[in-house]
Amino acid sequence: MANQKVVLAYSGGLDTSVAVKWLQDQGYSVVACCLDVGEGKDLAFIKEKALTVGAVASYVIDAKEEFANDYALVALQSHALYEGKYPLVSALSRPLIAKKLVEVAEKEGAVAVAHGCTGKGNDQVRFEVSINALNPNLKVLAPVREWGWSREEEIEYAKQNGVPIPINLDSPFSIDQNLWGRSCECGVLEDPWAAPPEEAYDLTLSLENTPDVSDVVEIEFSKGIPVALNGTAYSLADLILKLNEVAGKHGVGRIDHVENRLVGIKSREIYECPGAITLIKAHKELEDLTLVKEVAHFKPVIEKKMTEIIYDGLWFSPITKALQAFLLETQKHVTGTVRVKLFKGHAIVEGRKSPYSLYDEKLATYTSDDEFDHSAAVGFINLWGLPTKVQSMVQNAKKVTV
Amino acid sequence: MANQKVVLAYSGGLDTSVAVKWLQDQGYSVVACCLDVGEGKDLAFIKEKALTVGAVASYVIDAKEEFANDYALVALQSHALYEGKYPLVSALSRPLIAKKLVEVAEKEGAVAVAHGCTGKGNDQVRFEVSINALNPNLKVLAPVREWGWSREEEIEYAKQNGVPIPINLDSPFSIDQNLWGRSCECGVLEDPWAAPPEEAYDLTLSLENTPDVSDVVEIEFSKGIPVALNGTAYSLADLILKLNEVAGKHGVGRIDHVENRLVGIKSREIYECPGAITLIKAHKELEDLTLVKEVAHFKPVIEKKMTEIIYDGLWFSPITKALQAFLLETQKHVTGTVRVKLFKGHAIVEGRKSPYSLYDEKLATYTSDDEFDHSAAVGFINLWGLPTKVQSMVQNAKKVTV
Amino acid sequence: MANQKVVLAYSGGLDTSVAVKWLQDQGYSVVACCLDVGEGKDLAFIKEKALTVGAVASYVIDAKEEFANDYALVALQSHALYEGKYPLVSALSRPLIAKKLVEVAEKEGAVAVAHGCTGKGNDQVRFEVSINALNPNLKVLAPVREWGWSREEEIEYAKQNGVPIPINLDSPFSIDQNLWGRSCECGVLEDPWAAPPEEAYDLTLSLENTPDVSDVVEIEFSKGIPVALNGTAYSLADLILKLNEVAGKHGVGRIDHVENRLVGIKSREIYECPGAITLIKAHKELEDLTLVKEVAHFKPVIEKKMTEIIYDGLWFSPITKALQAFLLETQKHVTGTVRVKLFKGHAIVEGRKSPYSLYDEKLATYTSDDEFDHSAAVGFINLWGLPTKVQSMVQNAKKVTV
Amino acid sequence: MANQKVVLAYSGGLDTSVAVKWLQDQGYSVVACCLDVGEGKDLAFIKEKALTVGAVASYVIDAKEEFANDYALVALQSHALYEGKYPLVSALSRPLIAKKLVEVAEKEGAVAVAHGCTGKGNDQVRFEVSINALNPNLKVLAPVREWGWSREEEIEYAKQNGVPIPINLDSPFSIDQNLWGRSCECGVLEDPWAAPPEEAYDLTLSLENTPDVSDVVEIEFSKGIPVALNGTAYSLADLILKLNEVAGKHGVGRIDHVENRLVGIKSREIYECPGAITLIKAHKELEDLTLVKEVAHFKPVIEKKMTEIIYDGLWFSPITKALQAFLLETQKHVTGTVRVKLFKGHAIVEGRKSPYSLYDEKLATYTSDDEFDHSAAVGFINLWGLPTKVQSMVQNAKKVTV
Repeated sequence: MANQKVVLAYSGGLDTSVAVKWLQDQGYSVVACCLDVGEGKDLAFIKEKALTVGAVASYVIDAKEEFANDYALVALQSHALYEGKYPLVSALSRPLIAKKLVEVAEKEGAVAVAHGCTGKGNDQVRFEVSINALNPNLKVLAPVREWGWSREEEIEYAKQNGVPIPINLDSPFSIDQNLWGRSCECGVLEDPWAAPPEEAYDLTLSLENTPDVSDVVEIEFSKGIPVALNGTAYSLADLILKLNEVAGKHGVGRIDHVENRLVGIKSREIYECPGAITLIKAHKELEDLTLVKEVAHFKPVIEKKMTEIIYDGLWFSPITKALQAFLLETQKHVTGTVRVKLFKGHAIVEGRKSPYSLYDEKLATYTSDDEFDHSAAVGFINLWGLPTKVQSMVQNAKKVTV
Repeated sequence: MANQKVVLAYSGGLDTSVAVKWLQDQGYSVVACCLDVGEGKDLAFIKEKALTVGAVASYVIDAKEEFANDYALVALQSHALYEGKYPLVSALSRPLIAKKLVEVAEKEGAVAVAHGCTGKGNDQVRFEVSINALNPNLKVLAPVREWGWSREEEIEYAKQNGVPIPINLDSPFSIDQNLWGRSCECGVLEDPWAAPPEEAYDLTLSLENTPDVSDVVEIEFSKGIPVALNGTAYSLADLILKLNEVAGKHGVGRIDHVENRLVGIKSREIYECPGAITLIKAHKELEDLTLVKEVAHFKPVIEKKMTEIIYDGLWFSPITKALQAFLLETQKHVTGTVRVKLFKGHAIVEGRKSPYSLYDEKLATYTSDDEFDHSAAVGFINLWGLPTKVQSMVQNAKKVTV
Repeated sequence: MANQKVVLAYSGGLDTSVAVKWLQDQGYSVVACCLDVGEGKDLAFIKEKALTVGAVASYVIDAKEEFANDYALVALQSHALYEGKYPLVSALSRPLIAKKLVEVAEKEGAVAVAHGCTGKGNDQVRFEVSINALNPNLKVLAPVREWGWSREEEIEYAKQNGVPIPINLDSPFSIDQNLWGRSCECGVLEDPWAAPPEEAYDLTLSLENTPDVSDVVEIEFSKGIPVALNGTAYSLADLILKLNEVAGKHGVGRIDHVENRLVGIKSREIYECPGAITLIKAHKELEDLTLVKEVAHFKPVIEKKMTEIIYDGLWFSPITKALQAFLLETQKHVTGTVRVKLFKGHAIVEGRKSPYSLYDEKLATYTSDDEFDHSAAVGFINLWGLPTKVQSMVQNAKKVTV
Repeated sequence: MANQKVVLAYSGGLDTSVAVKWLQDQGYSVVACCLDVGEGKDLAFIKEKALTVGAVASYVIDAKEEFANDYALVALQSHALYEGKYPLVSALSRPLIAKKLVEVAEKEGAVAVAHGCTGKGNDQVRFEVSINALNPNLKVLAPVREWGWSREEEIEYAKQNGVPIPINLDSPFSIDQNLWGRSCECGVLEDPWAAPPEEAYDLTLSLENTPDVSDVVEIEFSKGIPVALNGTAYSLADLILKLNEVAGKHGVGRIDHVENRLVGIKSREIYECPGAITLIKAHKELEDLTLVKEVAHFKPVIEKKMTEIIYDGLWFSPITKALQAFLLETQKHVTGTVRVKLFKGHAIVEGRKSPYSLYDEKLATYTSDDEFDHSAAVGFINLWGLPTKVQSMVQNAKKVTV
């Protein structure tokens, strides 16, 4: 009788390569599945390696555009910065990877899905909640969490089972990357008083090494979607990757964050998100121009909720769609162009324009073109301040003569 | 019979100097009152000038420390950035100025208070609501709003009434400043597509002119209050002014904002807040280390409300005290040191430490010192994802086999 | 040359009848426009009366279904209760009336629209903001606010101008009504310590006079819309009117509220909303059964915002559509039946069922059918409580032995 | 060598009596601890029974006043209704019980604390998070969750170990009670379509059996604290118990709720809270009179957070104190008297008065005493509606002639 199949989220690294063997030990046939969500993987190599270490089948999927359009775009329009800082790099890709794993599992008739997360990170939660939501019949396995080996024990097992040991195994960092950014943790970073070492960074130049001449980019948005750079149209994935390059060269988007994980601990993480940070800033400025005040002041409530829901692994909860419906409605007139100067780690918005701009020079001006009704302010202030005035009269016991 | 007295918020500029005369024309005796809230005014000169143009008395008040401790500190602990960008420069000083005007008015037996705001800004609202709250018996006059003159008409009146015309009258900008920052509007800034000209700035160097060597400052906080720089204790006002200087030299704190005014229009404003931005970033990082997750995730709701209340001129509404009570309670353990690198327009937090740090290396580490219970995650994920799983089973009509 | 036209919101009462004459005095031709939004007006009589008092044209519009489907339904799905109490009776009809006035004005080529509100209520704001949003070219007139007459002066003017004086002019109350409810203010109600007199009510029986036998109704919802009562399908307007009748008979939906008006004062109002209250309660219970926790806990934030936006006259702000998009998404599975016992002023939900119920007896039960994984709780609690535990260890200085 | 001690939360019922024996089997000496938080327990009997079934010591603590003043009062001032319905009965007492258990454990030198909760309720979370926060050195045991017996197995163990079987063991319900109310679950209640049977209730009469004559009570509040009933001063615990009696007689406070538990499932619960519901209604009405609009509209955000924090077992998180600080500040002028008619299941507020009332008849009236400035509304509306008007002009492409 054939073994039951498990679909493993395969990265080509040591952990998931060892997991192929370990899952076989548990009696499964392993189907490897690797996604490119913009980190620039060598998919052909990974596909082959999976088979080499024992997978019965090996899928590689270029999911860059799907990731850009269905996930990164939501983060962009939500100005998603967890705790005001982290642009949701890994948190965004997990639901998409889960979706693809489930699709492959259903196609392959697998009974389980496996991921390579440990027991103290957020990603295990994101994978498992997503998989359970997409197909509650699938069992979820977490080999790395389950085997509980030390690094040495894992390497010993790898050697005994013919799993190749990567040459860069001594990297002190744990990295994850996609087109929305790159995260880095561990090693010296575990001391929050220590500055991150330069080798923790890869997508961005240090301020000291950035060019002394700025680049200026004009980003064009249509209904909240970035569609062109300097007049050239790009697919969203390509546009983000392009921006990662040019903004990264100028050192934009380094983030050093002591954050509250979902699993109850604080951790210190380094992120690099040159494209994401540039786009979020530009998009916000275009909203400042085109959103009416009530929307501009309430949207942050939606943004904060969306950010926390995604961070907390609840992408496939119905709340996400409801929040997205709100977002979508707000983007109808977020159309226009933002001019951004990339320089010395900054993405400085120098100008913004839109056919739907609510900035009205005739109302705002202090010149003689002024069309604002100054006398209206008297009545406005009278009523706006009335509750405070009555409160003060009654409750602050100020003597009042009528 | 003697004229009734009015206390005028006097700046020494053309508008309020003309207002002295204009108020006299209305039959008032004018008591001038000028505050220094950190903009570095020549108080002696202003005091004299008020008398010269006709005031019957002239008060000058150094309110820097009161402003720092009772107003700027609230903004700092609230991480107050209106619409995510504006650190409430003028909005913060208005209630204090109103308070001092009312105190002088009560001392002088005045029947009215006057300010020099026009009819389309936020400050008229802030002044009038504050004055009404503090003493509802006082009448509030707004000469500039009331006379409705063009610039030319005002100058003509000044000439005819012996009011000296300042030599820098041609400045294209309208400026306000205090120790929390400097605001600048008008002129070329009224086109939101145009980059602000260099002459719009005064407190900060342009990135192109900042030094190529960074300054590193260690800011020490005690219960959320900045108390020392690089080991030297300062009063809060002095500390902020000191930081304005060093951070300004590195170009920190330039802000270019298209904002929604309370009076219903969008305007484009330039702000410079080198000290404020540096302190807000440093304070937030210390909170990231010392606030428990529930507080860290809810405090932004309080911060947003506080920011809007202050912006909207409602400082003396009872809501402010209630929000402050919340804030104060959260600051008990916000004690420690933050190391900030000032460089090329950035205030980069490189390290943070606290005796009350909730970052626990033993829990966060991926080394063998790990004390985190990895197996707990299994149960956690099971319950955390249960609502989403049940929802999916029932409402997404996924066939489930038990 | 013909007079310019104004479209007047005409009710048939004294104020708007006098307004016809008064507007003529100002040089307008008056087009009267009266809507039935469920208050059971005699439209034929009102149409005729408008012409009698001098209108050049008279429109009467049965807008009950449009009001029910496009306005009351939003309030229902928002569980809209301003300040936790007031179901937005008048606030809901004003935008619809404004919309119809603007449509008539555009059809008639009128240059202005007029309403009969005074200067201290909320309705003037709702009318004027709505009309400005729908057609900023139209001038808005408020005759009653403008003429500033006492009751006696108004009656005198009416007599001199042949405007008939209604016989029930001595009513001590000011009433507004539509199918979502009835509001009543003024007179003895202005003392908040006094109980409302029985004659302030009209749609509901007093508890003392309600039947001693309950009625039980089964309300069927489809995607959040009430579609049937006791198995009989109704249009939404008819269903609400039907419920007003039966729930009113049982005294359901009396509300006595001291509320904060938009214009800065507190007022005391009496409302009767038998159908609205019954439907809101039933709808909430069906949501309790069918909404996943994350949606159930966040939707109140949307509801509160929607309620305040509507109360504050901002129906035609883009925020409304964005909030509605959120709402709509949440209603997809709010399908099912709620059994309500109407008795002694109560609408008691006794039972609720849905094909999309997320209540899972197998998980909830304490019998041997229990499928809940009890052991999962251990890990859940461990991580759920971890931040509080670490905080306590570090910041409460509890001595801990490891 | 003596056994280590465990302090057990002891109720006198079967589960915790069996737990005494079971903990002894695990090698512990058991110290029983029973609190009266207003449920009217026979403490002497319970104290004795604990010793009878084998406890080495037995504490009974009358914690009614502490519960009323430090816990129920917070719920009252928060108008705490979880999911709009549940007044936090059990959720409120758990942190206090945990506190007392920890105090006894520290006094007795115990190494552990034990509670009788199962693995699928909220109370296990509340107990364990609280105990961990108060003394992280104490181990927490959950015998009932751990033994995992069926009812029959438990009874068999009891018989074999000489634990007396209560005579009312066949009760189909699981009950918890304190002075803030009574909860009831299980049995027939597990079908949400079925109406709760009359025997599920104990504190309230059914509507059918309530008196035909109302009781009217005047509740006096001082700074948000209820201090007297009908002119007679009571301690808070006594006042609540008194109200439970009189409001219960009139059938006030029955609640039937399908709620989202923290542990991820929906459950159906019946609550009776006659005193709590009456006090919450009365307190809210006094706030309606005495809180300024900004506070009244923001306080619900604090209330919702406080309610969820308490429900979710996080009472001892620092967030609670910060929320309480906000609350406390808002209660300064919540002083006055509320007249409540108790009748047919209703607590109807008929009148409210306060020396700090912000309701100003001179501003609110429509009589000739009116002091409101009607003309102010024109300017107010102009600016209030300006953003919506500009948005409409620009983005709705309405042709506008100037």
